[in-house]
Amino acid sequence: MLVTKRSIYSVIARRYPIYLVSNAHPRLIKFKSTATISPNASSNPQLAFPCLDRLEKKNEELTNSYACSTNDPNVNSLEAGPEPSYSKVQTGFKVFKSQKPIFFDNGGYLPEYELAYETWGELNEAKDNIILVHTGLSASSHAKSQPDNSKPGWWEGFIGSGKYLDTDKYFIICTNVIGGCYGSTGPSSKDPADNNYFGTRFPVITVNDMVRAQHELIKTVYNVSKIHASVGASMGGMQSLAYAMEFPEEVGKIVSISGCARSHPYSIALRHCQRQVLMSDPNWKRGFYYDSVPPHVGMKLAREIATVTYRSGPEWEYRFGRNRADDSKPPAFCPDFLVETYLDHAGEKFCLEYDANSLLYVSKAMDLFDLGHNGRTRAAKIRQETEKKYNEQRELSEEFSVPEEPYKETAESATTTPEESLQDLKHGMAKIAHKDILVIGVESDILFPVWQQREIADVLKHNKKGGDIRYFELGTNVSNYGHDTFLLSLDHIGPPVKDFLQSK
Amino acid sequence: MLVTKRSIYSVIARRYPIYLVSNAHPRLIKFKSTATISPNASSNPQLAFPCLDRLEKKNEELTNSYACSTNDPNVNSLEAGPEPSYSKVQTGFKVFKSQKPIFFDNGGYLPEYELAYETWGELNEAKDNIILVHTGLSASSHAKSQPDNSKPGWWEGFIGSGKYLDTDKYFIICTNVIGGCYGSTGPSSKDPADNNYFGTRFPVITVNDMVRAQHELIKTVYNVSKIHASVGASMGGMQSLAYAMEFPEEVGKIVSISGCARSHPYSIALRHCQRQVLMSDPNWKRGFYYDSVPPHVGMKLAREIATVTYRSGPEWEYRFGRNRADDSKPPAFCPDFLVETYLDHAGEKFCLEYDANSLLYVSKAMDLFDLGHNGRTRAAKIRQETEKKYNEQRELSEEFSVPEEPYKETAESATTTPEESLQDLKHGMAKIAHKDILVIGVESDILFPVWQQREIADVLKHNKKGGDIRYFELGTNVSNYGHDTFLLSLDHIGPPVKDFLQSK
Repeated sequence: MLVTKRSIYSVIARRYPIYLVSNAHPRLIKFKSTATISPNASSNPQLAFPCLDRLEKKNEELTNSYACSTNDPNVNSLEAGPEPSYSKVQTGFKVFKSQKPIFFDNGGYLPEYELAYETWGELNEAKDNIILVHTGLSASSHAKSQPDNSKPGWWEGFIGSGKYLDTDKYFIICTNVIGGCYGSTGPSSKDPADNNYFGTRFPVITVNDMVRAQHELIKTVYNVSKIHASVGASMGGMQSLAYAMEFPEEVGKIVSISGCARSHPYSIALRHCQRQVLMSDPNWKRGFYYDSVPPHVGMKLAREIATVTYRSGPEWEYRFGRNRADDSKPPAFCPDFLVETYLDHAGEKFCLEYDANSLLYVSKAMDLFDLGHNGRTRAAKIRQETEKKYNEQRELSEEFSVPEEPYKETAESATTTPEESLQDLKHGMAKIAHKDILVIGVESDILFPVWQQREIADVLKHNKKGGDIRYFELGTNVSNYGHDTFLLSLDHIGPPVKDFLQSK
Repeated sequence: MLVTKRSIYSVIARRYPIYLVSNAHPRLIKFKSTATISPNASSNPQLAFPCLDRLEKKNEELTNSYACSTNDPNVNSLEAGPEPSYSKVQTGFKVFKSQKPIFFDNGGYLPEYELAYETWGELNEAKDNIILVHTGLSASSHAKSQPDNSKPGWWEGFIGSGKYLDTDKYFIICTNVIGGCYGSTGPSSKDPADNNYFGTRFPVITVNDMVRAQHELIKTVYNVSKIHASVGASMGGMQSLAYAMEFPEEVGKIVSISGCARSHPYSIALRHCQRQVLMSDPNWKRGFYYDSVPPHVGMKLAREIATVTYRSGPEWEYRFGRNRADDSKPPAFCPDFLVETYLDHAGEKFCLEYDANSLLYVSKAMDLFDLGHNGRTRAAKIRQETEKKYNEQRELSEEFSVPEEPYKETAESATTTPEESLQDLKHGMAKIAHKDILVIGVESDILFPVWQQREIADVLKHNKKGGDIRYFELGTNVSNYGHDTFLLSLDHIGPPVKDFLQSK
């Protein structure tokens, strides 16, 4: 076939449909090639975007299912229409209903709340064998399978008879954090004040707020004055320390794995990107999406970014290298290298399994984590003021207000030097330096680098209060799983934990 | 004022407008508090999102300006309406117009193309003093100020009389890469076949494609058979090696700073996230946005993610710490910590300064970079076939096709082991192992970690071909600027470069 040079690709171009987009609507309209953006042939064919085709199809399917829901504000569309999978994923947990309000570190309160929790093992007669296990950002209370939910839990191999957290000895409790979406009160719950979803009317929460809710559960349900241990990894490692800071005499031992004493700017930056990507999804609608299609694209992208921070370069080097998903195909902007199909899959799997608002609130709580003295003092004051006003039935004051303008860097603020900040941390952590604390770090972790776990141990030891402060580090010769090591290298994390829990 | 507990926040809530969203349109509609989502008060006030207000305002302004443009396909809306700033940012460059087509590594071609370039110093009589300076991902040819553009360039302090790249001795040339948007032919250029924007009808390009275009410029414009040196950092460090691989006897010395011999999965993953975020912006429209509002939100987010990878944790620790932009305000989901306002600013500054499609194409070219033998052999074959068919005016064959389905991981593909991959790299790089090559790495770089620069030097030395292979590493005691060190620590990068360029 002979054609002019200008149009030698016209035949090929005709094979590939061109996508055009209407300005008014983000959904793409598929044109047949006869309606390309030009009547002429192009030098090269239009690239195809099968990953976007798939997202659009998914969006369409979700839109169709939500179209069946109702607009009656008294009827929950999730009752009338399809439910996001996170409300189905978790079953078989118990629910603690607090009749008392909870007041938060940064202002705001919940008049009442619920905490989902699961337990393993038996509470002994002395009531001194409770281990409270804290979750990471998006985990549920389902740390291990149990009669009411036989699915494997997220720490299945770590907890059990004869395991590192031994259910023959200990009574293990795990809760879904407040602000979460797996049975505990969070932004996807309804505000009792008006029976509408909280959405972003939910107050900003902190890790301390989470552990105070857990403490209420333990006191109310089990009437226990002191738990044996507070154990957790990642955000759970923050909670395990925070629990001790809030109730130092009500916990025996503390285990903090891959956590930190305060969030550092690099991890804040990584979470910031995830939140901004999610908030930019038009379906997020400032948090009021519960009656429509959830921001599944933003959630998928946020999870892909997060997944990059959960693992390590060397692991991927070995696992994926430069292999492509299909070597016989030309390069594409849609997932192409094996590592890309892996990220895509991770995002796709997560995007409807967790509530978008919960992700924002819990991720922000991690940013705000700081065991320093000043922040904790200020938070206590705010809580007291809110409670006082609540009891006196008075209007809340300014500290409860929310920003209406983007924050500008001011000359008066942002003046704390690294040295002052470290002093404040030492001052704050002096409160728990007499406790027995095990800190574990993983060298290949880029989200919570080992210097942050070393910081916890160093600051505690600096205080010289006589606590048994142990620091244990897994080198790259042991684990290249990065931040996810606590989920994947149980036989390296487990022994020091087991030994520490049994020590006198 | 006494009110019931249920409504104690009603007064406060009334102060804050509630945003609701229509399903059909992503833009938010602002309601006065009298039209909240419930007639009742909520327990807590709605959070405000000033950062989203600002994005929406920007979108509205851009929409209004583009509304003045024309739909006539023969009239460029950028001529009729506002131009994205990248088309204004760069001025005063020269343009090389190639009359010959260029054939690409992965199929596809350009029937003709232009390269923007700038020069400093004088070409000597022997024509042996050319230094070709290669840019990073988004940089223009404006490496240094010059009479036609007096603005400081991106390597202003590095190039000049008596400086590390000494214009008293050398004739420095820098080009905007092919695929870019600062004067060189790229996706924002028009396809001569139909006079419409290329958009994503532009073929996928590689770093080798970029340097072949530069080589054509040097041969055609200056009639020079051998340049003194090929110098670059980041993607420029890839190009400097690629130039030597393509034309080993036409370059004297090679300097590769913060580059690599092949892209590794971790950096591919980080760029993947940026591309997916950008492609998910409804305004991207599969690359055909030149007559409407560009995907400024996706670009902003992509740049924020990129910025995280350009710097290091320790630098931010010292610079931002946990300082907030305004300590007197409560926490917010919009930029709040100082590091967040920094990222937000970086994204905002970039989002209209660079073409979104150029970002996709050049970023993908970085992923595809691999000095191994097999890929290079295959690419040469594809180019020859395309050229043959072009000369014979025949239709192109299958290897030029684009994927219509997402790639699935197949049992047949993805079977190259790390050892095989390294062997292939050694085989490929044997081609330049006799050359004089300086490799510089920066310990605090997380995007191109030092083990990747060590890999370049190790593989070259392994070949034992007699080249002067030098490796120089900047420790964290010297620079905590991470990947951006080549832009910020000139006095540490410069001396070894200067010394190497002068060596016999």
